[in-house]
Amino acid sequence: MKKEYNILVTNDDGIAAPGIKALTEVMQEIGNITIVAPDSPQSGMGHAITINSTLELRHHPDFLHTDSAYSCSGTPVDCVKMAVHEIMKTRPDICVSGINHGSNSSINVIYSGTMSAAVEAGIEGIPSIGFSLCDYNWDANFEIIKPYVKKIATEVLLNGLPEGVILNVNFPKTEAIKGIKICRQAKAFWEEEFDKRINPMGKEYYWLTGKFVNHDKGEDTDEWALANGYISIVPIQFDLTAYHAIQHLNSWNL
Amino acid sequence: MKKEYNILVTNDDGIAAPGIKALTEVMQEIGNITIVAPDSPQSGMGHAITINSTLELRHHPDFLHTDSAYSCSGTPVDCVKMAVHEIMKTRPDICVSGINHGSNSSINVIYSGTMSAAVEAGIEGIPSIGFSLCDYNWDANFEIIKPYVKKIATEVLLNGLPEGVILNVNFPKTEAIKGIKICRQAKAFWEEEFDKRINPMGKEYYWLTGKFVNHDKGEDTDEWALANGYISIVPIQFDLTAYHAIQHLNSWNL
Repeated sequence: MKKEYNILVTNDDGIAAPGIKALTEVMQEIGNITIVAPDSPQSGMGHAITINSTLELRHHPDFLHTDSAYSCSGTPVDCVKMAVHEIMKTRPDICVSGINHGSNSSINVIYSGTMSAAVEAGIEGIPSIGFSLCDYNWDANFEIIKPYVKKIATEVLLNGLPEGVILNVNFPKTEAIKGIKICRQAKAFWEEEFDKRINPMGKEYYWLTGKFVNHDKGEDTDEWALANGYISIVPIQFDLTAYHAIQHLNSWNL
Repeated sequence: MKKEYNILVTNDDGIAAPGIKALTEVMQEIGNITIVAPDSPQSGMGHAITINSTLELRHHPDFLHTDSAYSCSGTPVDCVKMAVHEIMKTRPDICVSGINHGSNSSINVIYSGTMSAAVEAGIEGIPSIGFSLCDYNWDANFEIIKPYVKKIATEVLLNGLPEGVILNVNFPKTEAIKGIKICRQAKAFWEEEFDKRINPMGKEYYWLTGKFVNHDKGEDTDEWALANGYISIVPIQFDLTAYHAIQHLNSWNL
């Protein structure tokens, strides 16, 4: 494998997160690293971009053994735009996002800053992968999954990805990983509940909370794979067109 | 048409925007309105949700002739979650989002707070439509498109929508609308440029700017329809799985 691969590393948990450190350590075995990550946690930011405000960029010399590390005041998607159009001299050969502290399987993909950063790189035509570990702990054990991260990233570098396709990779929280499954996104959702409280000034406010519910029993889903000890890989796309619905809508009286 | 439809109205330009006023006026002819919209502009917020901070809700009595109008301190997606799970006693029969001041065609759908609010309602199982007018002016002329908004919303109430499908409706900026086209999302993208400046304290900062580029000449796209005087309707989905790529990935050595 040639050693000149240019690799963009980003995430949504912020540049100081253990997950991006683990991802950087793996990718340094494969190529030259540029890190551009949010300067603060940006979980749940989805595909948000900063258009009504300004962005700041900070260089972090000798950060995780690279001189090309930057934090950005914006969202994960801003970080990718900033990396590609302002920082890197060449378009990277691959973008890796994560490793997220927590699951981005099933519907979580749509709320995820980690995955939206990966998708943004995909929109830019860069082969791109988002990695997430189904463990929300800050000190989660990333060591066990590092060989799989390297294997998957290497395969993407060797084979490329179909046009418009990004990989959503989730790791189960287990010491006994059984293997890798290519999956579809499970039809599983959040049942929201708002936790209503009163602040010290007597004013009501809310915390968004919720319960994750999976009614999709398909054994070809990411949720099934993860629940059964497998790494799930869901190929996702940013062409949101529901092609199957076009004919149906054409029958309407519009 | 029965008059008891419960209708949720939201947007991303904020509760004070002329676009949501126009949309509310149309929908009041069809049913009972609940407005839950951001308390400030939230353009480009994508599918962001507020999980690391709290949310506030404000009631606006007799706002646009309804007593059920609320502004929320969060994102457009937060507004929909708040509306469905905290404010409305029944699940609405339809959610309409907009009318956005500006285009949400092609790749813009993924950055759009307007469309993400509509998608969130779709995730909740509510028939849902996002409306956008390709005119960024605050005083854009919404009158001309009102009959089409009513027609499309009425068809959705009468026919429902296929499971997991949301409508992305864009109106061309023209006084001579030729009709409605059911379309696919054009493969058109932004070429970003960052406008680098120096603040009064001598520190660098950036504005995200860009140029919209459409290399997709397909006459079945939303961009073609809009450029040719038609209203575009793209059925979109939140199952992001790239099904066509699953077989390809299964041939890899993973």
